[in-house]
Amino acid sequence: MKINLKPRTMMYPAPAVVASAYDEDGNPDCCTLAFATMCSHHPPAIMIAINSTLKRKTLADILNTKEFCVGFPSVEHMAETDYFGIETGYRQAKLQKANFNYKNAEMVNAPIIEEFKVSVECRAMHIAEVGSHTQITGEIVNIQADESVIDNKGKIIFEKLNPLAYDDVTHSYYEMGEKISDAFKPGLKFR
Amino acid sequence: MKINLKPRTMMYPAPAVVASAYDEDGNPDCCTLAFATMCSHHPPAIMIAINSTLKRKTLADILNTKEFCVGFPSVEHMAETDYFGIETGYRQAKLQKANFNYKNAEMVNAPIIEEFKVSVECRAMHIAEVGSHTQITGEIVNIQADESVIDNKGKIIFEKLNPLAYDDVTHSYYEMGEKISDAFKPGLKFR
Repeated sequence: MKINLKPRTMMYPAPAVVASAYDEDGNPDCCTLAFATMCSHHPPAIMIAINSTLKRKTLADILNTKEFCVGFPSVEHMAETDYFGIETGYRQAKLQKANFNYKNAEMVNAPIIEEFKVSVECRAMHIAEVGSHTQITGEIVNIQADESVIDNKGKIIFEKLNPLAYDDVTHSYYEMGEKISDAFKPGLKFR
Repeated sequence: MKINLKPRTMMYPAPAVVASAYDEDGNPDCCTLAFATMCSHHPPAIMIAINSTLKRKTLADILNTKEFCVGFPSVEHMAETDYFGIETGYRQAKLQKANFNYKNAEMVNAPIIEEFKVSVECRAMHIAEVGSHTQITGEIVNIQADESVIDNKGKIIFEKLNPLAYDDVTHSYYEMGEKISDAFKPGLKFR
Protein backbone atom coordinates (compact mmCIF):
# COMPACT_ATOMS: atom_id res chain seq x y z
CA MET A 1 0.00 0.00 0.00
CA LYS A 2 1.21 3.48 -0.87
CA ILE A 3 1.33 6.33 1.60
CA ASN A 4 2.06 10.03 1.21
CA LEU A 5 5.33 11.37 2.58
CA LYS A 6 6.15 15.00 3.33
CA PRO A 7 7.78 16.57 0.26
CA ARG A 8 11.58 16.59 0.33
CA THR A 9 14.33 16.34 -2.26
CA MET A 10 15.32 12.87 -3.38
CA MET A 11 16.96 11.15 -6.33
CA TYR A 12 17.82 7.46 -6.66
CA PRO A 13 20.70 7.17 -7.17
CA ALA A 14 22.46 10.52 -6.72
CA PRO A 15 26.16 11.17 -7.23
CA ALA A 16 28.71 12.83 -4.95
CA VAL A 17 30.83 14.97 -7.27
CA VAL A 18 33.29 17.77 -6.61
CA ALA A 19 33.10 21.14 -8.39
CA SER A 20 36.27 23.23 -8.43
CA ALA A 21 37.06 26.81 -9.43
CA TYR A 22 39.55 29.61 -8.83
CA ASP A 23 38.76 32.59 -6.62
CA GLU A 24 39.62 36.18 -7.53
CA ASP A 25 43.16 35.71 -6.20
CA GLY A 26 43.72 32.54 -8.20
CA ASN A 27 43.35 30.23 -5.21
CA PRO A 28 41.61 26.92 -5.87
CA ASP A 29 38.43 26.01 -4.05
CA CYS A 30 36.05 23.09 -4.34
CA CYS A 31 32.84 21.74 -2.92
CA THR A 32 30.99 18.44 -2.97
CA LEU A 33 27.61 18.26 -4.67
CA ALA A 34 24.86 15.67 -4.93
CA PHE A 35 22.84 18.03 -7.14
CA ALA A 36 24.37 17.26 -10.52
CA THR A 37 23.21 15.69 -13.77
CA MET A 38 23.89 15.34 -17.44
CA CYS A 39 21.54 17.73 -19.23
CA SER A 40 22.41 18.10 -22.94
CA HIS A 41 23.96 15.98 -25.67
CA HIS A 42 24.60 18.80 -28.16
CA PRO A 43 26.66 20.45 -26.86
CA PRO A 44 27.57 17.94 -24.15
CA ALA A 45 26.69 19.57 -20.85
CA ILE A 46 26.06 18.95 -17.18
CA MET A 47 24.03 20.96 -14.71
CA ILE A 48 25.09 21.52 -11.11
CA ALA A 49 22.95 23.24 -8.49
CA ILE A 50 24.62 24.97 -5.55
CA ASN A 51 22.83 26.40 -2.52
CA SER A 52 22.75 30.15 -2.99
CA THR A 53 21.42 30.88 0.49
CA LEU A 54 24.50 29.45 2.21
CA LYS A 55 27.01 31.74 0.48
CA ARG A 56 29.32 28.99 -0.69
CA LYS A 57 32.70 30.13 -1.92
CA THR A 58 32.82 27.78 -4.88
CA LEU A 59 29.53 29.20 -6.13
CA ALA A 60 30.87 32.77 -5.90
CA ASP A 61 34.01 31.67 -7.74
CA ILE A 62 32.11 29.98 -10.57
CA LEU A 63 29.80 32.96 -10.97
CA ASN A 64 32.90 35.11 -11.22
CA THR A 65 35.00 33.06 -13.65
CA LYS A 66 32.12 31.25 -15.42
CA GLU A 67 34.42 28.24 -15.66
CA PHE A 68 34.80 25.17 -13.48
CA CYS A 69 35.71 21.51 -13.33
CA VAL A 70 33.69 18.64 -11.97
CA GLY A 71 35.58 15.62 -10.65
CA PHE A 72 34.02 12.19 -10.19
CA PRO A 73 35.38 10.73 -6.93
CA SER A 74 36.09 7.04 -6.61
CA VAL A 75 35.09 5.16 -3.47
CA GLU A 76 38.68 5.49 -2.22
CA HIS A 77 38.22 9.29 -2.13
CA MET A 78 35.20 9.17 0.17
CA ALA A 79 36.80 10.87 3.19
CA GLU A 80 38.21 13.76 1.16
CA THR A 81 34.95 14.11 -0.77
CA ASP A 82 33.04 14.21 2.49
CA TYR A 83 35.42 16.87 3.84
CA PHE A 84 34.96 19.06 0.75
CA GLY A 85 31.24 19.04 1.55
CA ILE A 86 31.41 19.93 5.25
CA GLU A 87 34.19 22.55 5.26
CA THR A 88 33.96 26.04 3.83
CA GLY A 89 36.58 27.48 1.51
CA TYR A 90 36.26 30.81 3.32
CA ARG A 91 37.92 29.23 6.38
CA GLN A 92 40.29 26.65 4.97
CA ALA A 93 42.32 25.86 1.88
CA LYS A 94 40.43 22.61 1.55
CA LEU A 95 42.55 20.87 -1.06
CA GLN A 96 45.71 21.50 0.96
CA LYS A 97 44.09 20.28 4.19
CA ALA A 98 43.05 17.04 2.50
CA ASN A 99 46.49 16.60 0.92
CA PHE A 100 45.00 16.73 -2.55
CA ASN A 101 46.75 18.27 -5.53
CA TYR A 102 45.52 20.34 -8.42
CA LYS A 103 46.71 21.66 -11.74
CA ASN A 104 45.26 24.03 -14.30
CA ALA A 105 42.60 22.55 -16.52
CA GLU A 106 43.55 22.29 -20.18
CA MET A 107 40.69 24.26 -21.73
CA VAL A 108 39.22 26.39 -18.94
CA ASN A 109 40.45 28.67 -16.17
CA ALA A 110 39.77 26.32 -13.30
CA PRO A 111 41.69 23.89 -11.10
CA ILE A 112 41.42 20.20 -11.87
CA ILE A 113 41.91 17.87 -8.90
CA GLU A 114 44.65 15.43 -9.75
CA GLU A 115 43.55 12.58 -7.50
CA PHE A 116 40.20 12.14 -9.25
CA LYS A 117 40.49 9.67 -12.11
CA VAL A 118 37.96 11.46 -14.30
CA SER A 119 37.11 15.17 -14.44
CA VAL A 120 35.20 17.29 -16.92
CA GLU A 121 36.15 20.86 -17.78
CA CYS A 122 33.13 23.14 -18.10
CA ARG A 123 32.27 26.59 -19.39
CA ALA A 124 29.01 28.04 -18.04
CA MET A 125 26.39 28.28 -20.78
CA HIS A 126 23.28 28.94 -18.68
CA ILE A 127 22.74 30.15 -15.13
CA ALA A 128 19.40 30.36 -13.30
CA GLU A 129 18.27 30.93 -9.73
CA VAL A 130 15.59 28.36 -8.97
CA GLY A 131 14.37 27.77 -5.44
CA SER A 132 17.17 27.82 -2.88
CA HIS A 133 19.84 26.97 -5.44
CA THR A 134 21.71 28.40 -8.39
CA GLN A 135 21.58 26.10 -11.41
CA ILE A 136 24.72 26.27 -13.52
CA THR A 137 24.76 24.44 -16.83
CA GLY A 138 28.31 23.92 -18.05
CA GLU A 139 29.28 22.89 -21.54
CA ILE A 140 31.83 20.08 -21.28
CA VAL A 141 34.74 21.34 -23.35
CA ASN A 142 37.27 18.72 -22.27
CA ILE A 143 37.52 15.50 -20.29
CA GLN A 144 40.60 14.45 -18.39
CA ALA A 145 40.76 10.76 -17.57
CA ASP A 146 43.43 8.58 -16.09
CA GLU A 147 44.74 5.97 -18.49
CA SER A 148 44.06 3.33 -15.84
CA VAL A 149 40.28 3.75 -16.17
CA ILE A 150 39.84 3.86 -19.95
CA ASP A 151 39.60 1.03 -22.43
CA ASN A 152 41.30 0.80 -25.82
CA LYS A 153 38.43 2.71 -27.44
CA GLY A 154 38.86 5.64 -25.07
CA LYS A 155 35.74 4.82 -23.04
CA ILE A 156 35.70 5.08 -19.28
CA ILE A 157 35.40 1.70 -17.56
CA PHE A 158 32.74 2.14 -14.88
CA GLU A 159 34.15 -0.54 -12.58
CA LYS A 160 37.63 0.98 -12.67
CA LEU A 161 36.36 4.44 -11.86
CA ASN A 162 34.29 2.85 -9.05
CA PRO A 163 32.21 5.99 -8.46
CA LEU A 164 30.77 7.10 -5.15
CA ALA A 165 26.99 7.42 -4.70
CA TYR A 166 25.10 9.42 -2.09
CA ASP A 167 21.68 9.03 -0.48
CA ASP A 168 20.34 12.41 0.58
CA VAL A 169 17.45 10.90 2.55
CA THR A 170 19.64 8.97 5.00
CA HIS A 171 22.84 11.01 4.47
CA SER A 172 24.83 7.95 3.46
CA TYR A 173 27.47 7.01 0.92
CA TYR A 174 27.06 3.92 -1.21
CA GLU A 175 29.26 2.05 -3.60
CA MET A 176 27.99 0.81 -6.93
CA GLY A 177 27.15 -2.81 -7.63
CA GLU A 178 27.38 -5.04 -10.67
CA LYS A 179 26.43 -4.30 -14.23
CA ILE A 180 23.14 -6.10 -14.73
CA SER A 181 22.42 -5.52 -18.43
CA ASP A 182 23.20 -3.63 -21.58
CA ALA A 183 20.66 -0.85 -22.16
CA PHE A 184 18.18 -0.70 -25.08
CA LYS A 185 17.83 -4.50 -25.11
CA PRO A 186 15.78 -5.84 -22.16
CA GLY A 187 12.83 -3.62 -23.18
CA LEU A 188 12.63 -5.02 -26.72
CA LYS A 189 10.43 -7.88 -25.53
CA PHE A 190 7.54 -5.45 -25.02
CA ARG A 191 7.66 -4.16 -28.57
CA MET B 1 48.83 9.56 -16.49
CA LYS B 2 45.89 11.68 -17.57
CA ILE B 3 44.75 12.00 -21.16
CA ASN B 4 42.17 14.20 -22.85
CA LEU B 5 38.99 12.58 -24.12
CA LYS B 6 36.58 14.03 -26.65
CA PRO B 7 33.83 15.94 -24.83
CA ARG B 8 30.66 13.96 -24.20
CA THR B 9 28.02 13.89 -21.49
CA MET B 10 28.78 11.82 -18.41
CA MET B 11 27.74 11.57 -14.78
CA TYR B 12 28.87 8.99 -12.23
CA PRO B 13 26.50 7.61 -11.13
CA ALA B 14 23.40 8.57 -13.10
CA PRO B 15 19.86 7.36 -12.39
CA ALA B 16 17.28 5.78 -14.71
CA VAL B 17 13.98 7.38 -13.69
CA VAL B 18 10.61 7.51 -15.40
CA ALA B 19 8.71 10.77 -15.96
CA SER B 20 4.97 10.49 -16.56
CA ALA B 21 2.28 12.92 -17.67
CA TYR B 22 -1.13 13.08 -19.33
CA ASP B 23 -1.60 14.10 -22.94
CA GLU B 24 -4.36 16.45 -24.13
CA ASP B 25 -6.84 13.58 -24.27
CA GLY B 26 -6.03 12.42 -20.74
CA ASN B 27 -3.99 9.43 -21.86
CA PRO B 28 -0.94 8.60 -19.75
CA ASP B 29 2.51 8.62 -21.25
CA CYS B 30 5.95 8.16 -19.77
CA CYS B 31 9.62 8.14 -20.71
CA THR B 32 12.85 7.04 -19.11
CA LEU B 33 15.47 9.64 -18.25
CA ALA B 34 19.06 9.57 -17.05
CA PHE B 35 19.13 13.37 -17.03
CA ALA B 36 17.63 14.05 -13.60
CA THR B 37 18.83 15.53 -10.34
CA MET B 38 17.77 17.06 -7.07
CA CYS B 39 18.17 20.82 -7.45
CA SER B 40 16.59 22.76 -4.54
CA HIS B 41 15.90 22.19 -0.87
CA HIS B 42 13.43 25.07 -0.41
CA PRO B 43 11.11 24.31 -2.01
CA PRO B 44 12.14 20.69 -2.56
CA ALA B 45 12.63 20.26 -6.29
CA ILE B 46 14.12 18.09 -8.96
CA MET B 47 15.24 18.98 -12.46
CA ILE B 48 14.73 16.71 -15.45
CA ALA B 49 16.11 17.40 -18.92
CA ILE B 50 14.36 15.93 -21.97
CA ASN B 51 15.68 16.02 -25.53
CA SER B 52 13.71 18.70 -27.34
CA THR B 53 15.09 17.87 -30.76
CA LEU B 54 13.55 14.37 -30.75
CA LYS B 55 9.96 15.54 -30.22
CA ARG B 56 9.24 13.25 -27.30
CA LYS B 57 5.58 12.95 -26.37
CA THR B 58 6.16 13.11 -22.62
CA LEU B 59 7.97 16.43 -23.06
CA ALA B 60 5.05 17.87 -25.05
CA ASP B 61 2.65 16.62 -22.38
CA ILE B 62 4.60 18.15 -19.50
CA LEU B 63 4.93 21.46 -21.32
CA ASN B 64 1.17 21.37 -21.79
CA THR B 65 0.01 20.39 -18.30
CA LYS B 66 3.03 21.73 -16.36
CA GLU B 67 2.63 18.79 -14.01
CA PHE B 68 4.29 15.39 -13.93
CA CYS B 69 5.43 12.52 -11.76
CA VAL B 70 8.86 10.96 -11.56
CA GLY B 71 9.06 7.31 -10.52
CA PHE B 72 12.22 5.67 -9.20
CA PRO B 73 12.43 2.16 -10.72
CA SER B 74 13.79 -0.72 -8.71
CA VAL B 75 16.17 -3.22 -10.30
CA GLU B 76 13.20 -5.59 -10.83
CA HIS B 77 11.66 -2.98 -13.19
CA MET B 78 14.66 -2.84 -15.49
CA ALA B 79 13.01 -4.33 -18.59
CA GLU B 80 9.96 -2.04 -18.38
CA THR B 81 12.15 0.97 -17.65
CA ASP B 82 14.30 0.14 -20.64
CA TYR B 83 11.19 -0.19 -22.82
CA PHE B 84 9.88 3.22 -21.70
CA GLY B 85 13.15 4.66 -23.01
CA ILE B 86 13.21 3.01 -26.44
CA GLU B 87 9.54 3.22 -27.46
CA THR B 88 7.67 6.39 -28.37
CA GLY B 89 4.32 7.29 -26.87
CA TYR B 90 3.20 8.52 -30.28
CA ARG B 91 3.18 4.92 -31.51
CA GLN B 92 2.27 2.86 -28.48
CA ALA B 93 0.40 3.10 -25.18
CA LYS B 94 3.60 2.19 -23.39
CA LEU B 95 2.26 1.49 -19.92
CA GLN B 96 -0.34 -0.89 -21.30
CA LYS B 97 2.21 -2.67 -23.50
CA ALA B 98 4.44 -3.22 -20.48
CA ASN B 99 1.51 -4.38 -18.32
CA PHE B 100 2.08 -1.52 -15.91
CA ASN B 101 -0.74 0.26 -14.10
CA TYR B 102 -1.28 3.89 -13.20
CA LYS B 103 -3.57 6.03 -11.11
CA ASN B 104 -4.03 9.75 -10.71
CA ALA B 105 -1.43 11.46 -8.57
CA GLU B 106 -2.78 12.92 -5.32
CA MET B 107 -1.68 16.52 -5.75
CA VAL B 108 -1.03 17.03 -9.47
CA ASN B 109 -2.75 16.25 -12.75
CA ALA B 110 -0.43 13.45 -13.82
CA PRO B 111 -0.40 9.65 -13.83
CA ILE B 112 1.60 7.90 -11.13
CA ILE B 113 2.92 4.45 -12.06
CA GLU B 114 1.73 1.99 -9.48
CA GLU B 115 4.52 -0.56 -9.84
CA PHE B 116 7.24 1.90 -8.80
CA LYS B 117 7.76 1.85 -5.05
CA VAL B 118 8.55 5.55 -4.78
CA SER B 119 7.33 8.42 -6.95
CA VAL B 120 7.38 12.18 -6.56
CA GLU B 121 4.59 14.45 -7.77
CA CYS B 122 5.89 17.63 -9.36
CA ARG B 123 4.61 21.00 -10.49
CA ALA B 124 6.82 22.82 -12.99
CA MET B 125 8.40 25.91 -11.42
CA HIS B 126 11.04 26.72 -14.05
CA ILE B 127 11.52 25.71 -17.67
CA ALA B 128 14.54 26.51 -19.85
CA GLU B 129 15.83 25.41 -23.23
CA VAL B 130 19.54 24.71 -22.84
CA GLY B 131 21.52 22.93 -25.53
CA SER B 132 19.61 20.05 -27.10
CA HIS B 133 17.34 19.60 -24.08
CA THR B 134 14.50 21.26 -22.21
CA GLN B 135 15.25 21.60 -18.50
CA ILE B 136 12.14 21.31 -16.35
CA THR B 137 12.47 22.02 -12.66
CA GLY B 138 9.54 20.59 -10.73
CA GLU B 139 8.61 21.43 -7.18
CA ILE B 140 7.98 18.20 -5.30
CA VAL B 141 4.50 18.68 -3.85
CA ASN B 142 3.94 15.09 -2.74
CA ILE B 143 5.76 11.79 -2.42
CA GLN B 144 4.05 8.43 -2.77
CA ALA B 145 5.96 5.53 -1.28
CA ASP B 146 5.13 1.92 -0.71
CA GLU B 147 4.93 0.97 2.95
CA SER B 148 7.34 -1.88 2.24
CA VAL B 149 10.23 0.52 1.56
CA ILE B 150 9.86 3.00 4.44
CA ASP B 151 11.07 2.76 8.00
CA ASN B 152 9.14 3.69 11.14
CA LYS B 153 10.28 7.32 10.81
CA GLY B 154 8.82 7.58 7.31
CA LYS B 155 12.22 7.49 5.61
CA ILE B 156 12.81 5.52 2.45
CA ILE B 157 15.13 2.54 2.97
CA PHE B 158 17.61 2.66 0.09
CA GLU B 159 18.23 -1.10 0.07
CA LYS B 160 14.52 -1.89 -0.10
CA LEU B 161 13.94 0.51 -2.97
CA ASN B 162 17.01 -1.05 -4.67
CA PRO B 163 17.25 1.67 -7.33
CA LEU B 164 18.47 1.22 -10.87
CA ALA B 165 21.55 3.11 -12.11
CA TYR B 166 22.59 3.83 -15.67
CA ASP B 167 25.94 4.42 -17.35
CA ASP B 168 25.51 6.65 -20.40
CA VAL B 169 29.07 6.05 -21.60
CA THR B 170 28.68 2.30 -22.06
CA HIS B 171 24.85 2.23 -22.22
CA SER B 172 24.58 -0.16 -19.30
CA TYR B 173 22.38 -0.64 -16.25
CA TYR B 174 23.94 -1.15 -12.85
CA GLU B 175 22.62 -2.10 -9.48
CA MET B 176 23.72 -0.34 -6.34
CA GLY B 177 26.18 -1.78 -3.84
CA GLU B 178 26.58 -1.58 -0.10
CA LYS B 179 26.35 1.43 2.15
CA ILE B 180 29.93 2.28 2.99
CA SER B 181 29.55 5.16 5.47
CA ASP B 182 27.36 7.77 7.03
CA ALA B 183 27.95 11.18 5.44
CA PHE B 184 29.42 14.22 7.23
CA LYS B 185 31.67 12.02 9.37
CA PRO B 186 34.60 10.54 7.41
CA GLY B 187 35.75 14.04 6.42
CA LEU B 188 35.99 15.28 10.00
CA LYS B 189 39.53 13.93 10.29
CA PHE B 190 40.80 16.66 7.97
CA ARG B 191 39.38 19.47 10.09
